[in-house]
Amino acid sequence: MRIVAALGGNALLQRGEPPEAGIQEAHVVAAVRALAPLAAGHDLVITHGNGPQVGMLALESAHDPAISKPYPFDVLGAQTQGMIGYWLVQALHNALPGRPVTCLISRTLVSPDDPAFADPSKFVGPVYGEEQARALAASGHWVIRRDGARWRRVVPSPEPAGLPDLPAIRVLLATGAIVVCAGGGGVPVVIRDGVARGVEAVVDKDLTASLLARELGADALLLLTDVTAVQDGYGTPQARPIRRATAAELRQREFPAGSMGPKVEAVCRFVEATGKLAAIGRLADAQALLAGQAGTLITGPAMSGRAAGPGARRIPGE
Amino acid sequence: MRIVAALGGNALLQRGEPPEAGIQEAHVVAAVRALAPLAAGHDLVITHGNGPQVGMLALESAHDPAISKPYPFDVLGAQTQGMIGYWLVQALHNALPGRPVTCLISRTLVSPDDPAFADPSKFVGPVYGEEQARALAASGHWVIRRDGARWRRVVPSPEPAGLPDLPAIRVLLATGAIVVCAGGGGVPVVIRDGVARGVEAVVDKDLTASLLARELGADALLLLTDVTAVQDGYGTPQARPIRRATAAELRQREFPAGSMGPKVEAVCRFVEATGKLAAIGRLADAQALLAGQAGTLITGPAMSGRAAGPGARRIPGE
Repeated sequence: MRIVAALGGNALLQRGEPPEAGIQEAHVVAAVRALAPLAAGHDLVITHGNGPQVGMLALESAHDPAISKPYPFDVLGAQTQGMIGYWLVQALHNALPGRPVTCLISRTLVSPDDPAFADPSKFVGPVYGEEQARALAASGHWVIRRDGARWRRVVPSPEPAGLPDLPAIRVLLATGAIVVCAGGGGVPVVIRDGVARGVEAVVDKDLTASLLARELGADALLLLTDVTAVQDGYGTPQARPIRRATAAELRQREFPAGSMGPKVEAVCRFVEATGKLAAIGRLADAQALLAGQAGTLITGPAMSGRAAGPGARRIPGE
Repeated sequence: MRIVAALGGNALLQRGEPPEAGIQEAHVVAAVRALAPLAAGHDLVITHGNGPQVGMLALESAHDPAISKPYPFDVLGAQTQGMIGYWLVQALHNALPGRPVTCLISRTLVSPDDPAFADPSKFVGPVYGEEQARALAASGHWVIRRDGARWRRVVPSPEPAGLPDLPAIRVLLATGAIVVCAGGGGVPVVIRDGVARGVEAVVDKDLTASLLARELGADALLLLTDVTAVQDGYGTPQARPIRRATAAELRQREFPAGSMGPKVEAVCRFVEATGKLAAIGRLADAQALLAGQAGTLITGPAMSGRAAGPGARRIPGE
């Protein structure tokens, strides 16, 4: 079985924690305890978010004009791939002695005509008050938008359209290696006149994981986060966990744009294209998710009749 | 033929230039113009220094305690591998369409008993005046040493003793891929009680390149820098470029500890162990170096009688 597992950036740094190296490395070690059982007898590809990490490096890079001008997000994303990839490789190497593990720097192709470039929407970095936000917007370097009662920087989040570094991933998987790749959604690049160039953007990591899973012919896509399951009626008193659903059923519901929305879109694309299994749930439940015993299991139309029954089954009160 | 080429960190950022992303990426594109011809018909492994880059990230990471505590050098080194590796992969991909290119995050094993840990000697980051240096030393986090008339931070620079990520490099080379790896000398790790952990150190990138070349059975090791050739009597009025020498002949001479010394040690180890060819010279001369038409060519005892004559040949006045 070939598994693509996507780890949320918040699994590496929880809300309110200082972004210290030691804290994050300890979280990676804990994450690997949950991930390692997935590797037994299976091909395993691990991808990860980088929201808190790229936000920290962006701030640091913009902190002191005497050191340097702020770095663009393609370069910052590559820095986080190196850092988080190193932690993951080391922790996997320690947890699974003898199993080869490799992290490769990987890019994600996006279209230069993606409408996201004209409408930046992905929040990055800290929140600001109105006055500070106006000053930052006036500087001309950043686009600032309202995020609830405060303001934040936004960058374009174009669709992942291709994975130029896929051949190496395939080669390494064929040797039995666990592959860490496409961190932070991949380093975003466009091709113009035959030349690849980085762009100032952040690709959604779950949409990239979905593309990766499709391109690699994966049997399962696991989106590992900090919620027990996808909620029907999220934020309302009627909220209930969805235990099983087809992609078609999920598409009939609404999910928050900034968080669960892209995850639901990612699993729907995967199961619609492949008829294989996808699941969303807690990192700690990774093995149970794969067994359909925790989280939300999403199946394609081809599989739903067999494995998940004709309709979505929700277990009330769970 | 299998070639290991090591690119100086200064090739990516020249002395006095601000460490901006765009400036460095342009240097990488220029470096790749010199490197690309080496790839034709050959296995090619590229490694690179990271002195200016890791220095910048270390400063940024220490800049604002409100964001985070300073990051250790293993983690900062991994960040630079991601960043520089991304630039190199992209530039090589653009220069050699159709040839696979991969950068993998790679670690270098060092001994926990390496005497370097008791005697930090590698200068990193900017220079300080005496007062500032005393304050930094008193903070207890950094070791500060005199560097000429000023002061700088020093970190341990242990010997490279192993390359845990070598199997993946071999696998990728076997498929014809150009492999970028071991940047900044590799992320330094020690193994204690069977567990690998990062350490606060910087491994010399030329010594790591030499180990890499030996482990990979390379036919040539090229150390690409900004000097035309190794100088005999460097810094004296009698300074002359050395065009060819055996390792034994180089070992009879003295070279500056911080710069040419480790390069000479690196090539000597390679040619002594393998009897193959090594060269030190300008990045722009990469192809001519391989052909023995520029720089300093170093040959092992086995080869020197055949290819380089019995003694060192210096071309006076060149």
